[in-house]
Amino acid sequence: MENSRFKIHFLPNDVTVEIEEGKTVLDASYKGDLFINALCGGDGTCGKCKVILQSGREQVIPSSHISEEEAKKGYVLACKTIIENDLEVFIPEESRLDKSQILVGHFPQFSGSQAAVSPGIEQFKHSPLVNKYYFELPPPTMDDNMADFERLCQNISSKTKIPSEKLTINFSVLKQLPALLRSCNWNITVTLGSRGSLFEIIEVQAGDVSAHNYGVAVDVGTTTVVAHLINLSTMETIDAEATYNSQIRYGDDYIQRIMYASQNNAMEMMQEMLTEDINHLISTLVKRNSLNIHDVNAIVCAGNTVMTHFLLGLDPTNIRKEPYLPAANFVAPIRASEIGVRINNHGLLYTMPCVGAYVGGDISSGVLSIRLDTTEALSLLIDIGTNGEIVLGNKDWLVCCSASAGPSFEGSGIACGMRAAKGAIEKITILPDFEVAYKTIGNVPPTGICGSGLLECLANLVRSGVIDRTGNFQKGINTKRLRSTDDGQEFLLVDRKETAKDKDIVITQADIQNLIRSKAAIYSAISTLLESMGMDVESIEQVYLAGGFGNYLDTRSAITIGMLPDISISKVHFVGNTSIIGAKMTLFSTEAHEVAKEIGAKMTYIDLMSNNKYMEEYVSANFLPHTNIEKFPSVAEELAVK
Amino acid sequence: MENSRFKIHFLPNDVTVEIEEGKTVLDASYKGDLFINALCGGDGTCGKCKVILQSGREQVIPSSHISEEEAKKGYVLACKTIIENDLEVFIPEESRLDKSQILVGHFPQFSGSQAAVSPGIEQFKHSPLVNKYYFELPPPTMDDNMADFERLCQNISSKTKIPSEKLTINFSVLKQLPALLRSCNWNITVTLGSRGSLFEIIEVQAGDVSAHNYGVAVDVGTTTVVAHLINLSTMETIDAEATYNSQIRYGDDYIQRIMYASQNNAMEMMQEMLTEDINHLISTLVKRNSLNIHDVNAIVCAGNTVMTHFLLGLDPTNIRKEPYLPAANFVAPIRASEIGVRINNHGLLYTMPCVGAYVGGDISSGVLSIRLDTTEALSLLIDIGTNGEIVLGNKDWLVCCSASAGPSFEGSGIACGMRAAKGAIEKITILPDFEVAYKTIGNVPPTGICGSGLLECLANLVRSGVIDRTGNFQKGINTKRLRSTDDGQEFLLVDRKETAKDKDIVITQADIQNLIRSKAAIYSAISTLLESMGMDVESIEQVYLAGGFGNYLDTRSAITIGMLPDISISKVHFVGNTSIIGAKMTLFSTEAHEVAKEIGAKMTYIDLMSNNKYMEEYVSANFLPHTNIEKFPSVAEELAVK
Repeated sequence: MENSRFKIHFLPNDVTVEIEEGKTVLDASYKGDLFINALCGGDGTCGKCKVILQSGREQVIPSSHISEEEAKKGYVLACKTIIENDLEVFIPEESRLDKSQILVGHFPQFSGSQAAVSPGIEQFKHSPLVNKYYFELPPPTMDDNMADFERLCQNISSKTKIPSEKLTINFSVLKQLPALLRSCNWNITVTLGSRGSLFEIIEVQAGDVSAHNYGVAVDVGTTTVVAHLINLSTMETIDAEATYNSQIRYGDDYIQRIMYASQNNAMEMMQEMLTEDINHLISTLVKRNSLNIHDVNAIVCAGNTVMTHFLLGLDPTNIRKEPYLPAANFVAPIRASEIGVRINNHGLLYTMPCVGAYVGGDISSGVLSIRLDTTEALSLLIDIGTNGEIVLGNKDWLVCCSASAGPSFEGSGIACGMRAAKGAIEKITILPDFEVAYKTIGNVPPTGICGSGLLECLANLVRSGVIDRTGNFQKGINTKRLRSTDDGQEFLLVDRKETAKDKDIVITQADIQNLIRSKAAIYSAISTLLESMGMDVESIEQVYLAGGFGNYLDTRSAITIGMLPDISISKVHFVGNTSIIGAKMTLFSTEAHEVAKEIGAKMTYIDLMSNNKYMEEYVSANFLPHTNIEKFPSVAEELAVK
Repeated sequence: MENSRFKIHFLPNDVTVEIEEGKTVLDASYKGDLFINALCGGDGTCGKCKVILQSGREQVIPSSHISEEEAKKGYVLACKTIIENDLEVFIPEESRLDKSQILVGHFPQFSGSQAAVSPGIEQFKHSPLVNKYYFELPPPTMDDNMADFERLCQNISSKTKIPSEKLTINFSVLKQLPALLRSCNWNITVTLGSRGSLFEIIEVQAGDVSAHNYGVAVDVGTTTVVAHLINLSTMETIDAEATYNSQIRYGDDYIQRIMYASQNNAMEMMQEMLTEDINHLISTLVKRNSLNIHDVNAIVCAGNTVMTHFLLGLDPTNIRKEPYLPAANFVAPIRASEIGVRINNHGLLYTMPCVGAYVGGDISSGVLSIRLDTTEALSLLIDIGTNGEIVLGNKDWLVCCSASAGPSFEGSGIACGMRAAKGAIEKITILPDFEVAYKTIGNVPPTGICGSGLLECLANLVRSGVIDRTGNFQKGINTKRLRSTDDGQEFLLVDRKETAKDKDIVITQADIQNLIRSKAAIYSAISTLLESMGMDVESIEQVYLAGGFGNYLDTRSAITIGMLPDISISKVHFVGNTSIIGAKMTLFSTEAHEVAKEIGAKMTYIDLMSNNKYMEEYVSANFLPHTNIEKFPSVAEELAVK
């Protein structure tokens, strides 16, 4: 017997989804393409996916995540609500994932301006990975009777300076070549794609259509997928689009997703989710700009090692098992259609090379984007997304590691934490009288606090003396904001009357410890990299902060809490989404793609988990800013520590 | 309404074919996999496809090809006999194509003996196009944590000395790699295929199966397809098999087949016929030697330009239209499965490079097999098959051409001509009293005369004075063998009483003129090549005769009639099926494959049809041996010409 099917009506979106009995409200929301926050991947532990049942269920029972008060209003966890009848479900703002808040990269800077694309792009000459050339071939005669393919190669070779022996042709293109050449009087456009050391003729078209050549650069993040559409003839970024990674439903963390995929034989499903996310982005970009998808000939994807594996359909199982091995770090370009990515049927897909299990193509892309590999100055690249990867080096050497910073800077595991979305507090100050000033994203009443706000909040709590250097609330602080609950002490940031959801925004003792652990992980990773090279903080000449977090980060606060070492603020640069910038540089330049490969091969990965020095450093860094205040002289002065 | 279907019972094979009304008896024979000689491709002009209706038809009407006497016996042309009811058909011996007579190459010489394979093979080191290597990879540890693919490449590179950056992997193999490596404790066999400048990992198998590596060399002739099965580990030729090219039914000549395919939109069908012929040969070889087809990893095909096009599915239409252009002369290796050839699913198919429309991969293969490209001595390679191709040169240069010798040396267009099959007269002498001594293939009563017999017959007719140097029968010859018919004079070679089919074997005035035209074409092609290089006959140091014809040819007779120039017989070498020998050398050696490409690119094609010198020479050569007897001093002496 077939299961019954029910209708779930979602508000405020006004979307109705039909789904079979036994599925959850979270499943239904995905089916309706509605993104509900479910950090834990739907196992009921994070409590972020609260929705309100407006009709269809008699009574809601309180639980560890649902207070009595909430239960009265109909709050339930979407992931734990099994569908047994038709429902009307309201998704409150704090549970929504809003695509408009995803950082799509330095897109506005790019349009029409070649120079502004990236600090590194000017170093490469314009030679897109896939290029189009127009030819008026001399028609053959009895005295000039070279075969069609060889005639074509000779002309390509003389125009592009690519030696004939490096030219290959897609076999199906070769089959159509004789008829095509004669149908258009030997006037043709050739699409030439770079495939490692060879170049493939991926298409031959009648007449001059050489101006119609587009590419897509994609940042395949664990949380978000961002795509930029590029005109490969002009190097112009035409448009950008972002979406949440559909795999989110199987875990916020990629380790959870590997486990889910292994246990449920769902590798192909994981791949399909990513390719469909990418297809959706591309088709949106192509339609919005009235292009033909046939003219999209190349796609470059930058992602961490696990995302790159899922995208290519490679098994990532061994990444999470000692000795933590990827199937491959570098995969040569493939036909996009081979993995179900829809661009030109013969179009090519490139992935940025990975370094190891925990440092992926997003990081080699980042190193490329700022040309860390050619810089004289000793530099540090810190990319804080769902994971925190750090690279130290210069033109002579590069070492890297991945810090288990945890998801607290993304708002996970924090009582009032949330992603950097509308209504999130992104800047916050605690005044001398312990009053609080703040600014939200979108300047609307606050619903929670995001990573940059949390970090600044922590710095201000220690500056104002509300907490001590261990992170504990000080005794004898004269403010009603500091209060006790059943779970311990908490500090009130925003009164419920000012908030969007009529609920106090607080920071708890547990939140503070979580944040300290996260910042300690990053700091001790930096120290370990320096120590491994026999260097110290004074050696660092430049710090590049990348990723969504980096864009809003208050550098001084990051030093005050001891996430960054005590360096001059003037050395710190925000470089945005370097993952997508590197991917775009690669699209623009075959040479850049070669350099990315060299970068991937050149970087030395240092495993922190098996490193004693790291564990020591980590323990010492579980202080504000550090057990040894002498390492942070400017903070000692700021906090007037004797 | 559906057409009625009838049963055609073929004798002596005892094969019954069911076929719809309106088809011909020739169609039915193909359906039953019975090869009936139909040189003209079934348009009723050659008269070779005679069969005897034993029941099912009341009366047979005589025609230009069927004499009154034959009509009484029930003889009809299979290609012109429309099926309207059940029939019993006897295929007389002279109309049968017998597979056992196809020259499969110097196969017996090869077995187990590396040195005897070919005069050129010793120059190359053993490095098969597809090779297998066994590895016991060091299992990874935390200190040796290279990714799976990179670990594999590093080990391959260190064993084979192929640089890592030249290694690629079949994407589907990469997907299975992590699980496979761990399933067999990192002990694996890698199959590595040469793809131009790169090497592809086409398979990875558990354990040591490196000894199971086979390849097939194929001579794709216009008339016959010959395959040799090779053990790629030992270089041993295991077995050989041959069949008729199934395309024969659409014309003996490849130009007819191009026309048929163009006019009937039958390119794909033509390709399928060839691939099925090859599949049939491979599957026979594999079964007979108890191998697994999965272990056949490479196939090298040598064929003329048109056969190579049909095989690859490339359109050969422009080959027969001025300025006579192939789609491509060199096609990089493809996966055999791409064109429907069944070996290992990831196995590679290589074609020998062509030079131009009328000089193909069989000839570059031939040049490779005797290393004409490295020889000091000025040499001539003459390959007479269905077409006659000639190469002149040495290590410094190579020129080539294709002579329109016509099919008379294959027995076509000759009253009693036949292919070199059982019962064909292959040696013949005319004694001083005009009596005739002969030897047949298989030492059975004769049914006709094949190329080598025709050539010797012509030489003996002129030596004995039966014909003069214009080819006309002399007056006053005292023998009953010379007699007149309605169609002119003829010379009786074998009386009907001695023959297998109770029919006189004769040579007619028209036959003699046909043969003279054919030999003149070859001679004038040689002269034109020499003249184009400013050389003469005396310059020739070596002559290599290749092809089925060459194997039985009486060199002296070939000089007497003026097919070969007047050179010392000691300079002439029979080299057999050089097309398949070159293909085998290529299978054995990646380097030989590179050399074949260089040979293909190096050869200069000289078009005879647009060459005035050739036309002059051709007219002068329409004599026995030549208008200018001074060019043939030894023949002048032999014939005592003053």
